[in-house]
Amino acid sequence: MAEPRRYVQPGSEAGSSATSPFGTHRAVEPAGALPQPAWKVDNDFRKIYAGELLLAVNTLNVDAASFRQMEEARRPEEAPQQAVARLVRETVEARGKQHNPVTGSGGMLLGRVIEVAPDRADFGSLKAGDRIATLVSLSLTPLRIDQIGAVRSSSAQVDIEGEAVLFATGAYARMPPDMPERLALAVLDVAGAAPQVARLVKPGSSVCILGAGGKSGILCAAEARRVGGPSTRIVGVENHPDYARELEGLGLCDKVISVDARDPIGTREAVMSANDDREVDLALSCVNVADAEMAAILVTRDRGTAYFFAMSTSFTKAALGAEGVSKDVDLVIGNGFAKGHADHSLQMMREMPAVRALFERRYV
Amino acid sequence: MAEPRRYVQPGSEAGSSATSPFGTHRAVEPAGALPQPAWKVDNDFRKIYAGELLLAVNTLNVDAASFRQMEEARRPEEAPQQAVARLVRETVEARGKQHNPVTGSGGMLLGRVIEVAPDRADFGSLKAGDRIATLVSLSLTPLRIDQIGAVRSSSAQVDIEGEAVLFATGAYARMPPDMPERLALAVLDVAGAAPQVARLVKPGSSVCILGAGGKSGILCAAEARRVGGPSTRIVGVENHPDYARELEGLGLCDKVISVDARDPIGTREAVMSANDDREVDLALSCVNVADAEMAAILVTRDRGTAYFFAMSTSFTKAALGAEGVSKDVDLVIGNGFAKGHADHSLQMMREMPAVRALFERRYV
Repeated sequence: MAEPRRYVQPGSEAGSSATSPFGTHRAVEPAGALPQPAWKVDNDFRKIYAGELLLAVNTLNVDAASFRQMEEARRPEEAPQQAVARLVRETVEARGKQHNPVTGSGGMLLGRVIEVAPDRADFGSLKAGDRIATLVSLSLTPLRIDQIGAVRSSSAQVDIEGEAVLFATGAYARMPPDMPERLALAVLDVAGAAPQVARLVKPGSSVCILGAGGKSGILCAAEARRVGGPSTRIVGVENHPDYARELEGLGLCDKVISVDARDPIGTREAVMSANDDREVDLALSCVNVADAEMAAILVTRDRGTAYFFAMSTSFTKAALGAEGVSKDVDLVIGNGFAKGHADHSLQMMREMPAVRALFERRYV
Repeated sequence: MAEPRRYVQPGSEAGSSATSPFGTHRAVEPAGALPQPAWKVDNDFRKIYAGELLLAVNTLNVDAASFRQMEEARRPEEAPQQAVARLVRETVEARGKQHNPVTGSGGMLLGRVIEVAPDRADFGSLKAGDRIATLVSLSLTPLRIDQIGAVRSSSAQVDIEGEAVLFATGAYARMPPDMPERLALAVLDVAGAAPQVARLVKPGSSVCILGAGGKSGILCAAEARRVGGPSTRIVGVENHPDYARELEGLGLCDKVISVDARDPIGTREAVMSANDDREVDLALSCVNVADAEMAAILVTRDRGTAYFFAMSTSFTKAALGAEGVSKDVDLVIGNGFAKGHADHSLQMMREMPAVRALFERRYV
């Protein structure tokens, strides 16, 4: 860059808005908003504010729903990858962040540290050159793109040259030295799942996973088995034949069922029959299609928990659906963040070589 | 009715679909669906199926968001009440249920028992003529309207003559003999709130209620005080001046704050300053406007709970919002049903005369 960067001391600039650990100081439209709801954020990185971490970006790991939407929005003369490259460029130019205006979702990024604001807690421990992945959504991460490289549909990744800033409250993970970066990215993308499951599963409990053969579904099944042990009954629901076969091959589930989770009555009957005609203690919805709320609710016993990781979940369909069938079930919105979730999920990968091998085949 | 009713024995009719405790046998479009997601349900009550309870309907207690939408959709020549009457009639004619196609929400109803299917668990204890309110949404309750009477905007109620059917899994409450029916209806409308709060609040915990001066907000504050006792710190956020004053008058909250819950940073600062500069253990969102998710998340401590009663909550805004600020908070979808919730909330009304008096002034 032509101009040197300048670190803005907290409260030092007359007229500059106060910096915030949440990044409100980067919101442009509307000013002062949180960076995620903001339409546009400031991606001028000649100034670095208190609490910020400046990164050189190599790869965007785009949210799957967002990536698919961009492929489908291609012009007649465009290849899907060209459309993704164009739309990513347009979005970041317009909004200062890769916040897909249609799906509302983002993704995460892989890069290396350029500069650490001296007031950060990790100043000193985090060094320029360290390779990290962000664990907060691209939908709130200020980003500038100088160049777009390869676009990979199989993993929904886009290689770029550019820079990004992480705020004081933005989580990240160092890339582990003992696994390929793309494997680590695939795991970190759904890192919240395993620790949430670890909090909920007890030995002897029964668990149903909807969409058990996908990325987060497999992590949920693996973690349920790891913390629940052999006495935990795990029923995996997976309607995609290849995914169901691969899931069975892992030997994590007591039973793998092929049924469409959008059919709540059929799913309930199949799951109960795989669980001694009883409803399960815990349902984990990892199905990335709409209208799977009722299946999760109907397979769960009274005072059990239906936990929704799927971003396709509708709040009102879940709330009114449970009420409509008088089901006293705790309905939980999957929080992508949990303390220590990155280390937790990477460690799981090390301890479960069969799961790691499947992830390497599929996502690397 | 000209034709006599006929009770259809389970499995007795060749060609008839199996009856279901969830009411799938009444789904017409698409056939076999659950009655809530179904576009249209069968409201021909000349046949009564296994598990069903037939009611004569007196009053529809329409969901507030649905009622407002219908008022606003009035034609130039219509009064708001006329528009509501017309749209209720049109909806029930088209769908066989009062399931507002714009808001997706329903409401509940007040009526009296006509007929109890002999296979029901309450056959014998529930008698023809008993007055009951349904506790499942009108959005899944088969309903026929013969006549529309008074439309009351203040309470979002519509008097009708008609009939409805409740399925085996559909909860209801008998009208209590010791309070006006309209007071009981107002309480039962938000009956899920109090028992959910009772499960979450412990003595010594800190609680923030967003929208604390509304119907469900007041019930949450009352229950938090009742189960938490004097050692529980309750901060009520209420931006409507009259509601804030009335809430203060009840003496339930340690502090009532007037701030817009759509301003997450401002709300966080005000709530923390009312709680010794600490985040709260539990946030209850009863705000019926969009974009209040982040306020609930930002006021809550790590490993605390943000509980969303508001139907205006967005699943993705809550999930991505918490992740975006790296908040390890349990995010819960308010389930309108909890075991014993009707008796629980009515009993609370008896034990808290000041709350009862306010509800009688406002909602009766």
